[in-house]
Amino acid sequence: MRFLLTVQYVGTAYCGWQRQPNALSVQQVLEEAFFLVTGEKVCMHASGRTDAGVHAKGQRVHFDSQTKIPPEKLPFALNTKLPSDVRVSVATIVPDDFHARYSVKNKTYVYSFYCSPHEDPFMFPFAEHLPLKPDMAKMQATARLIEGEHDFKCFQASGGHVKSTIRTVYSIKITENNEHYEIAVNGNGFLYNMVRIIAGTLYYAGIDRITPSDVKKAFETGDRNLLGKTLEAKGLSLYEVVY
Amino acid sequence: MRFLLTVQYVGTAYCGWQRQPNALSVQQVLEEAFFLVTGEKVCMHASGRTDAGVHAKGQRVHFDSQTKIPPEKLPFALNTKLPSDVRVSVATIVPDDFHARYSVKNKTYVYSFYCSPHEDPFMFPFAEHLPLKPDMAKMQATARLIEGEHDFKCFQASGGHVKSTIRTVYSIKITENNEHYEIAVNGNGFLYNMVRIIAGTLYYAGIDRITPSDVKKAFETGDRNLLGKTLEAKGLSLYEVVY
Repeated sequence: MRFLLTVQYVGTAYCGWQRQPNALSVQQVLEEAFFLVTGEKVCMHASGRTDAGVHAKGQRVHFDSQTKIPPEKLPFALNTKLPSDVRVSVATIVPDDFHARYSVKNKTYVYSFYCSPHEDPFMFPFAEHLPLKPDMAKMQATARLIEGEHDFKCFQASGGHVKSTIRTVYSIKITENNEHYEIAVNGNGFLYNMVRIIAGTLYYAGIDRITPSDVKKAFETGDRNLLGKTLEAKGLSLYEVVY
Repeated sequence: MRFLLTVQYVGTAYCGWQRQPNALSVQQVLEEAFFLVTGEKVCMHASGRTDAGVHAKGQRVHFDSQTKIPPEKLPFALNTKLPSDVRVSVATIVPDDFHARYSVKNKTYVYSFYCSPHEDPFMFPFAEHLPLKPDMAKMQATARLIEGEHDFKCFQASGGHVKSTIRTVYSIKITENNEHYEIAVNGNGFLYNMVRIIAGTLYYAGIDRITPSDVKKAFETGDRNLLGKTLEAKGLSLYEVVY
């Protein structure tokens, strides 16, 4: 049987989703919790890797198992074995040809930052502190340039290895509440650090460090240096995956 | 000159506000940050102690110093020397007879808990997880019994040493948002664990573990056992102090 989990995690303590030799990953603690519950070793597949320090409110993970534990009881069982910064909220049975990564229709990441004069210790693990307050209209105008199908090569950090860098961003929604900004980016796929570069580019547009024509030129030339800085991993959360 | 600070801290890593021999306190890290900035050793006085694990969004702290740093610059200087879970947002000069504790008119604590089926890793350090959902009307009705001037002896944990246990609770405001409950208690003073016992009593009333007459009888007899359990420290935050 193929199981699909919905997983939340605070990424601060982890090297990211994917197993690594000398660091603790979310994949490892989830697979180990499943082994403690069932005695069965499984390999879990996520909707996408998240980097070190990145959080997830709606990561999705599939795996194949012989367990007789009913899916509605599986989250309770796994949560007794998981550390407090990782939790499974939902488990369902999916068809054998379902794949957590390849079956994705679209995903939403949310980037959080805040602009109070001083840092907020409650925000510290979850949002970047950027003291200059951005202009909302300028951020919105720049978001409109990024939405749509583009070659996002310029929005990719070095280290990304993919055949095609063409992606579609369906929407970018920016909200502000009491100097706390959230940028929700929904798209059909994301390159390495793409959301963090989009967030940095919107912020730089908002504080007049780059112009709309810089963004247009970056798309034309593929030049990463025309865009804003890559914001910190800790402000990023994988919010929702749609199949 | 007497300085008054507004301080925020995530209490998770600390033994509480007050200095202790073999544990790290918020008082210690603040006094050490001030020493690193000015070279001057001062003793800081808070509006009240917070216990181990309790947070503060609006702790107030006074101390006397010869420093020539203007008060509006002091938070920036201190924040460069403080750990990321403690921040100073405001500093002002106050009269020499002002006292962070004795000059308090009223204080507000907020207790947070949530009732989703599974724990939320993002809430873990900041709210207690209580799976049974309480009845809002029953919590509200019980809050009305606790408001006012009473002998709060029954709302005190053992270990409290005060002459009088008479206090006035000016208001208890309960809000619910998406299974997340906040209980804001404003009063002229609080006994040891009083807010955590009030929160536990409201919750127990909300899940039919105690009745309004239990609360009335507890006030009459001083019997702590008639009330709800003491909720966990991590859900409590010192929210605001009014002078």
